[in-house]
Amino acid sequence: MNNAGERVRRCFGLAWRTAAKVGKEDPRRVVHSLKVGLALTLVSLLYLIKPLFEGIGQNAMSAVLTVVVVMEFTVGATLGKGLNRGLGTLLAGSLAFLVEYVADIPGRIFQAVFIGSAVFILGAVTTYVRFIPHIKKNYDYGVMIFLLTFNLITVSSYRVDNVWAIAKDRIATIAIGGGLCLVMSLLIFPNWSGQELHNSTISKLEGLANSIQACVVRYFNDSETQDDESDDLIYKGYKAVLDSKSKDETLILQGCEIKQALQASWEPRWSRYWHRIPWRQYKTVGITLLHFSYTVVALHGCLLSEIQTPGSIRALYKDSCIRLAEEVSKALRELANSIRNKRQFSPQALSDNINEALQHLNDDLKSQPQLFLGSKNFGAATNAEEDTRVSFSSVKSDCSSMFESKSKELSYALPFAAFTSMLVEMVAKLDRVIDAVDDLAKLSHFGEFRDEDEIE
Amino acid sequence: MNNAGERVRRCFGLAWRTAAKVGKEDPRRVVHSLKVGLALTLVSLLYLIKPLFEGIGQNAMSAVLTVVVVMEFTVGATLGKGLNRGLGTLLAGSLAFLVEYVADIPGRIFQAVFIGSAVFILGAVTTYVRFIPHIKKNYDYGVMIFLLTFNLITVSSYRVDNVWAIAKDRIATIAIGGGLCLVMSLLIFPNWSGQELHNSTISKLEGLANSIQACVVRYFNDSETQDDESDDLIYKGYKAVLDSKSKDETLILQGCEIKQALQASWEPRWSRYWHRIPWRQYKTVGITLLHFSYTVVALHGCLLSEIQTPGSIRALYKDSCIRLAEEVSKALRELANSIRNKRQFSPQALSDNINEALQHLNDDLKSQPQLFLGSKNFGAATNAEEDTRVSFSSVKSDCSSMFESKSKELSYALPFAAFTSMLVEMVAKLDRVIDAVDDLAKLSHFGEFRDEDEIE
Repeated sequence: MNNAGERVRRCFGLAWRTAAKVGKEDPRRVVHSLKVGLALTLVSLLYLIKPLFEGIGQNAMSAVLTVVVVMEFTVGATLGKGLNRGLGTLLAGSLAFLVEYVADIPGRIFQAVFIGSAVFILGAVTTYVRFIPHIKKNYDYGVMIFLLTFNLITVSSYRVDNVWAIAKDRIATIAIGGGLCLVMSLLIFPNWSGQELHNSTISKLEGLANSIQACVVRYFNDSETQDDESDDLIYKGYKAVLDSKSKDETLILQGCEIKQALQASWEPRWSRYWHRIPWRQYKTVGITLLHFSYTVVALHGCLLSEIQTPGSIRALYKDSCIRLAEEVSKALRELANSIRNKRQFSPQALSDNINEALQHLNDDLKSQPQLFLGSKNFGAATNAEEDTRVSFSSVKSDCSSMFESKSKELSYALPFAAFTSMLVEMVAKLDRVIDAVDDLAKLSHFGEFRDEDEIE
Repeated sequence: MNNAGERVRRCFGLAWRTAAKVGKEDPRRVVHSLKVGLALTLVSLLYLIKPLFEGIGQNAMSAVLTVVVVMEFTVGATLGKGLNRGLGTLLAGSLAFLVEYVADIPGRIFQAVFIGSAVFILGAVTTYVRFIPHIKKNYDYGVMIFLLTFNLITVSSYRVDNVWAIAKDRIATIAIGGGLCLVMSLLIFPNWSGQELHNSTISKLEGLANSIQACVVRYFNDSETQDDESDDLIYKGYKAVLDSKSKDETLILQGCEIKQALQASWEPRWSRYWHRIPWRQYKTVGITLLHFSYTVVALHGCLLSEIQTPGSIRALYKDSCIRLAEEVSKALRELANSIRNKRQFSPQALSDNINEALQHLNDDLKSQPQLFLGSKNFGAATNAEEDTRVSFSSVKSDCSSMFESKSKELSYALPFAAFTSMLVEMVAKLDRVIDAVDDLAKLSHFGEFRDEDEIE
């Protein structure tokens, strides 16, 4: 009994910690939850307060349903879902009336067959349409609502005479529910999609900067020991970028949708706000970051590689490699700060520092080529091969022990060459990122770059 | 006028071609669409046929709604959504009765306040709970249905006396709709999640094989010209693997869920079918393929790199690199075939071929080290630097022209070393893939490997 009590308590403790963590990660989640609760309570008043209930009646339930389904975290998502729901309902309503008009003419059985066929055809066609990637991405919810409303009206029309009343009530309650959602998400602590995009871009830049630093430090410090913590840090940094693609695309899509919606009419304040966000350019930045992150993945791959260049050789180039990586990280952080503070930056200053570091690495490679490229060691570097064997011993599977005997003869310099090459490649990719962020800064009309902002 | 007609015709043509393409890609989509149409027609009969309608009444609409929402492409997804909907409804129903019981005691106004508070609290709590990643992933739909049903019953209870009737009808119609969906998706041309997973694993293996081959051929043949077609092929191959993670996870999750559901009871035929699928192992294979694909991305990065080793040097190692890549591709195809035909394979035979190719590359690197590692050329290889400058001229942005002057002094051998290193790394990663597929073959009880199956 005591045991069970203990277990329940531990279970609750875990649930509480998980919940607290979710809230701490993003306090806006708590606010959003309270907003949904408030919206639901308000929409329930339609049912609870007598005069309101008499005006709307049983259909008030449909408004509650709309609030549950439409209310999303960001303004953009709420607007998108609301538009989808509204358009789907309207379109289905129009089509259903057409079908009803045709079905109205002859006998009862023909009517039933006609309705059945219409349901079958529309059901099959809309389901098929949802497989088209473009529809799936933008209008999946709208198509589902279309099918739902169409069936509701068409099938009801067989038993209920006044279908027009059903349709009218449904549209009215959906409008009430949708309107309430919009008001709640636009006016009370709004979460703008643009802000989300802004924040996610900043955190991606900083994550990559952390990744690179951790990567290089680990490569030169203790590559033999498995350091899970730094591995986690590296992984988290680029994983955020690799995973963010579809989430960002949704945000951008919503942004562009809303921009169009607001272009049509609406209040100037929001319109101005949304117009100032260069949605497409955020996408460009995201893509350059994605490509950049592939080189980080490859760099991380060099750490995890089963074939390693001996530490003694790596140590020769340690300083210049770390310096280059640090300059790259610093540049990424500078870009993140530029976006965060909405200030332009000087691409020239960033490049100069990186070029200097690159030159330094180049000098190092030149000054000690005999070890790195040492063709004399290549054939019979017994000491080095000894070293290599140590790394190899970590390989456990059967097959790799067969590879082992072959591949250890391959130049032990190859892995380090790959590592250096990835660093250099990273600089080239960083260049694209700098360009994209520079364009973003110009399109967003960030504040001018001032000399006192300069990187120390 | 004619112009507009032409445009409409072209628009329809495009829509038709898109629709045809979607169907051609996977003919099961057409079947599924017809199935949904049929299910909707059948459920509409509840409304259209008089005796049925008299039994169920207006609530038949709720069954239609359930079919629209629950019917998914695979058996697993349908079951998952059905279970979510069923559990959410039942749980909300129980809780709503508790609330109603408490609210039943005192005066009218207190009752309204109590209901309003309950709606607010439950609304806020469920919305918050949906932010927890584990819930979001597995039960998002169920939690939404819970909130929906709870509000429906609680709020209705204020105006309607017989809430039990509402709840009963709702549960009954949801059961009818859900049951119909299950029957349709289980019995009529079922699309098993396991089959999906099986097919997606095969196509991923083959896609990677194509990627690698195209990569290596392009690297050695005409790296100067931009060949969009082969670029597309390379990109498609690894993109499928990079993108598949969440889709596969959903399938695996569904599989495990269903396995648990079927474990409890149910017909032995399906139970046996689902038990034979080693869901978790498919996940392991997916993860090893993901890591493998990172090296393919890096290899592709070597092609797109702005710094290139001169073609004359690359040509020296062309044959052995292409051979190694071809062995790797062949091994991947062999694995795909093993999964497709449900036959075990011989890891030994695969490794032997690859080792031979690896040895060959090693010999080549050894026999001509003076060019690859040429420390004499390193300092002042004017010809080679001339070559490098050609590749550099393709870099257009301002910043990179600054990098150019520095980094071209970096050894021109680095990029090729990276390329080779990635190839060797790929062999090491392939090893993991082979192990994972081997385990999969054993866990799935694939047919024994026979000698006549051996790779020619």
